[in-house]
Amino acid sequence: MEEGRIVFPSAPLVRVRGPIIAAQLLETPLLNIINFETLIATKAARIAIAARGKPILEFGLRRAQGIDGALAASRAAYIGGCSATSNVLAGKMFGIPVKGTHSHSWVMAFGSELESFEQFAKASPGNCVFLVDTFHSLDGIVHAIAVGKTLKQAGHELAGIRLDSGDLAYLSIEARLMLDEAGPENVAILASNELDENIITSLHEQGARITTWGVGTRLITGHDQAAMGCVYKLSAVRDPGGEWKPRMKLSEQVAKVSNPGIQQVRRFEGASGFAGDMIWHEEPGSEAPPSGLMIDPLDLTRRRLFPQSQAWEDLLKPMFRKGEAISAPESLEAPRARVAADLDKLHAGIKRFVNPHVYPVGLEESLFNLRSDLMIRLRNLRVNGQFD
Amino acid sequence: MEEGRIVFPSAPLVRVRGPIIAAQLLETPLLNIINFETLIATKAARIAIAARGKPILEFGLRRAQGIDGALAASRAAYIGGCSATSNVLAGKMFGIPVKGTHSHSWVMAFGSELESFEQFAKASPGNCVFLVDTFHSLDGIVHAIAVGKTLKQAGHELAGIRLDSGDLAYLSIEARLMLDEAGPENVAILASNELDENIITSLHEQGARITTWGVGTRLITGHDQAAMGCVYKLSAVRDPGGEWKPRMKLSEQVAKVSNPGIQQVRRFEGASGFAGDMIWHEEPGSEAPPSGLMIDPLDLTRRRLFPQSQAWEDLLKPMFRKGEAISAPESLEAPRARVAADLDKLHAGIKRFVNPHVYPVGLEESLFNLRSDLMIRLRNLRVNGQFD
Repeated sequence: MEEGRIVFPSAPLVRVRGPIIAAQLLETPLLNIINFETLIATKAARIAIAARGKPILEFGLRRAQGIDGALAASRAAYIGGCSATSNVLAGKMFGIPVKGTHSHSWVMAFGSELESFEQFAKASPGNCVFLVDTFHSLDGIVHAIAVGKTLKQAGHELAGIRLDSGDLAYLSIEARLMLDEAGPENVAILASNELDENIITSLHEQGARITTWGVGTRLITGHDQAAMGCVYKLSAVRDPGGEWKPRMKLSEQVAKVSNPGIQQVRRFEGASGFAGDMIWHEEPGSEAPPSGLMIDPLDLTRRRLFPQSQAWEDLLKPMFRKGEAISAPESLEAPRARVAADLDKLHAGIKRFVNPHVYPVGLEESLFNLRSDLMIRLRNLRVNGQFD
Repeated sequence: MEEGRIVFPSAPLVRVRGPIIAAQLLETPLLNIINFETLIATKAARIAIAARGKPILEFGLRRAQGIDGALAASRAAYIGGCSATSNVLAGKMFGIPVKGTHSHSWVMAFGSELESFEQFAKASPGNCVFLVDTFHSLDGIVHAIAVGKTLKQAGHELAGIRLDSGDLAYLSIEARLMLDEAGPENVAILASNELDENIITSLHEQGARITTWGVGTRLITGHDQAAMGCVYKLSAVRDPGGEWKPRMKLSEQVAKVSNPGIQQVRRFEGASGFAGDMIWHEEPGSEAPPSGLMIDPLDLTRRRLFPQSQAWEDLLKPMFRKGEAISAPESLEAPRARVAADLDKLHAGIKRFVNPHVYPVGLEESLFNLRSDLMIRLRNLRVNGQFD
């Protein structure tokens, strides 16, 4: 997620073919949608890794950019690994489970915290997750336990408590002890307050007894990486004779040099998971890359040879043809399951937060040579530079 | 903008009075709108300060959260001090000037850069700002100058060049020399590439000759502060007898303790600009704060006495009554002019980026005492804590 960790050359996420004017009109909407939603799904996946299987509730609406930013984020966060959202409209539109708690103002509107919990329990006895930090969290837990006893007499259970400030490690450990001593079982301890994957990891290290994570601001904004910087570049044009000519953009900044050609991404898979993503030039009529040799354009000695026997999948698949969707829309469960399955196939070293291993991405040998030739040609001819 | 710099207690931006359920329903939309738009207007104002009067074009759409996030940001950025947007829809909806340049793909679609500039000049001779970094920026400037000469023969002028990568200080200085030598006057040198107030300040220090700033990602996301953390808290309830009772939220984190009372903000002004924002308890029927003494609740010795003769303005003014807007909507020029005029009244020390002076905000003495009394009462009574 951090800039230094973005894999170069990053493999294309989308390929568009069409008249230049039509393809150009798609640039901004595609970048707007893909940059933001991929960023949020990735951040959610990182938070899910940190949460080690415990549920994550997405609470970001109040810090999003408008309502459609929030809706897109709720959807992307669910795909990335969140379990539910507090955004009721997102729940309604996309079928995401809706979860949340009452507010501080609920407590403050009554004469005392205890009274506010009692009234909540009367109104919604099957859904009591009490926010305990309006005045003093440990007292709030005492009040929640007291109301939990009343609930039990009426045949209900205290569902949980929510910590929203203070020392979440200390308070969750104390809460677990107090709850265990008082008797109610399986009471959730939900924590929130500027959480992200790093703070959740730290809370685990401190022995926190948190069972559910509420994550808002730092998920919905990306926080330490507030934007994904994908761009949309012309990589080939068809001349009047019907021949495809590769195109590329140079730059003094190597990260801004684009890759030429009609790019496809072949993902190889081995016994221990994904082995690498090879970008290859998929000329019309070609069914396979000319070779299995992948080269890192930033370090020519970093190469990987994929044997013919290795399993693979080409990642770019047609979704629209002549403006019509090819396949029926999926429910969110399908991409959510794919993300989880794909993450399982990434080596743990790639998924760690500190000094992660960089997943291998590179260019197939003949595409690498095409790129090098074109760069040399464009740089040599400079002032009168001609493409073809 | 950075968290450490947020003034505490921050003065309220909005006050809502109504039945609890109605006021509660407003919480999320108000926070969503005010947090994001205030963040972006503030970021734009900071960038405008760094740009020292030179125009700033907002280029954020491709890194925004959906289309209404982008529209809200274009609007807020214009209010904060930007001059134009590349978002055509925002221009149409809000009357913001629309500006931008051609893309890299325009250049790459032709056989050479020179040819692409010539074709652009044919199609749009009155609007030639050439993006020169597709291959090599200095060569691009040569091509732009060449096409500028052809334009001049046809009675037009080269409007500008745009640098989008590389060493912007070096390239802008070279570009100015090359343009001056070649003759065309007033050619704009537009720069873009992950700019924000800090990089713009650094480029000024390096003697960059940039005349127009294009700012996208780091403006529209907030970048180093990706969210403004405003909250919405219950501060008073009216009992059945019609009496207003103050309410407050405690916390172990002092920044999460809310202020009680029906809050109004009195901004005092002296000969050298704004002198401080005093939060006071505006009980129904009261027309003025009980005293002119303002106390910083984090440091009781930090006090400021505003004399009765000092000029002031109460900032919270009614905008809706019983669901109806009181005044007609303004054009964007009005808030934009207010922001500029208000910034002029802030001491330069408050507006600097490194170790800024903190603008004085505090509580009027009797509100301070009310807050202290209530805190002590709530903390002493703890487990059986009662408000009233």
